[in-house]
Amino acid sequence: MRDTFHDELDQIGGALVEMTNLVGSAMSRATTALLDADLNLAESVISADQTIDDLYRQTEERAFDLLARQQPVAGDLRVIVTGLRMVGDLERMGDLAEHIAKIARRRYPSSAVPPELRVVLLEMGQIAQRIVAKAGSVIAGQDAELAAELEHDDDAMDALHRRLFKILLDDEWSHGMEAAIDITLLGRFYERFADHAVSVARRVVYLVTGEMPVKDPVSPVG
Amino acid sequence: MRDTFHDELDQIGGALVEMTNLVGSAMSRATTALLDADLNLAESVISADQTIDDLYRQTEERAFDLLARQQPVAGDLRVIVTGLRMVGDLERMGDLAEHIAKIARRRYPSSAVPPELRVVLLEMGQIAQRIVAKAGSVIAGQDAELAAELEHDDDAMDALHRRLFKILLDDEWSHGMEAAIDITLLGRFYERFADHAVSVARRVVYLVTGEMPVKDPVSPVG
Repeated sequence: MRDTFHDELDQIGGALVEMTNLVGSAMSRATTALLDADLNLAESVISADQTIDDLYRQTEERAFDLLARQQPVAGDLRVIVTGLRMVGDLERMGDLAEHIAKIARRRYPSSAVPPELRVVLLEMGQIAQRIVAKAGSVIAGQDAELAAELEHDDDAMDALHRRLFKILLDDEWSHGMEAAIDITLLGRFYERFADHAVSVARRVVYLVTGEMPVKDPVSPVG
Repeated sequence: MRDTFHDELDQIGGALVEMTNLVGSAMSRATTALLDADLNLAESVISADQTIDDLYRQTEERAFDLLARQQPVAGDLRVIVTGLRMVGDLERMGDLAEHIAKIARRRYPSSAVPPELRVVLLEMGQIAQRIVAKAGSVIAGQDAELAAELEHDDDAMDALHRRLFKILLDDEWSHGMEAAIDITLLGRFYERFADHAVSVARRVVYLVTGEMPVKDPVSPVG
């Protein structure tokens, strides 16, 4: 039988997994809103970010409360403090999905995405959804092997990001500066979203193995 | 006489202030490197980021160690966990200064900043330095009034960011797409730098007053 402390720790883990679901849904809807110029869908992402923020605060309070009441040491302490970090990453991922939805809203009824970039943005959205779903599985299963997969997804995201710049820099670009600014920012938002998801997975690996994966030992740039 | 615990806490506070100095210096040099197309200065920012990252890890370890050994409750616990957050903000600010230096390096021997944007970027760099210096003073003095000043600096940064986009969107823009992408990203890096500095100051206010300032209760987007 498990003790109360570890039951409460599991609840925090459950909240983190729930946040990956919410953030994944936000990213999925934000990408569709962007590609379809769907104002209602964009608005739904923007208003739903409050739910993610609320869950962030609740989980943070719960972790503080557990720290204060149980005074865990060593491994358990590290789990809680790392959980606090992960919940911060997930909250920011929600904000990034919201930023994408806001670009979709700002350009409505036009689409912010010119035809030749639709496929790139679609793929970036798909990788973003996949990577956050995997981050959720990594948290739920403490699966260090799956965490390695996220690094490959992140590489694929970086490659798409480079392709996006290549298209922007092509002499044939005819969509003007406003669209170029949108695309530059969108590229950055998708890339940052993936970076944070990788950071979440790395923190789990760190808890399991006691060592941070070497590729990028410090947190993503924000 | 103060006890060992609070001495150790002061040491963590001292490390945070030192990080604001390092990050402020990095931002100052990155802005100069950008405006002067100074490759050596850009390289110095990029290599000095390692020092910031090292200090980040040391401070984090020290905070963990203090948590584990002293098992603080309530207020002291909150101070340490909040300190862990602040050190994360500062580490990211160092990364953002490094990103700016990397854009300067990528465009060398040209400048990434067209003439009509020099003043805007210069002012963004100055506000960034001022805001991080104030964040350092807020940490050192736990000064909630000074923290309010940062909000005004942040508003000034946002206004400059909007001016930057206005110049980009002007029909007379003649510097091509590559420069436009650089400027879009630079604008975002300066803005994010200021957001993180405000976040640091808000966390101090939270520790002093027990309440987060309302303007943007959640952490900045990364």
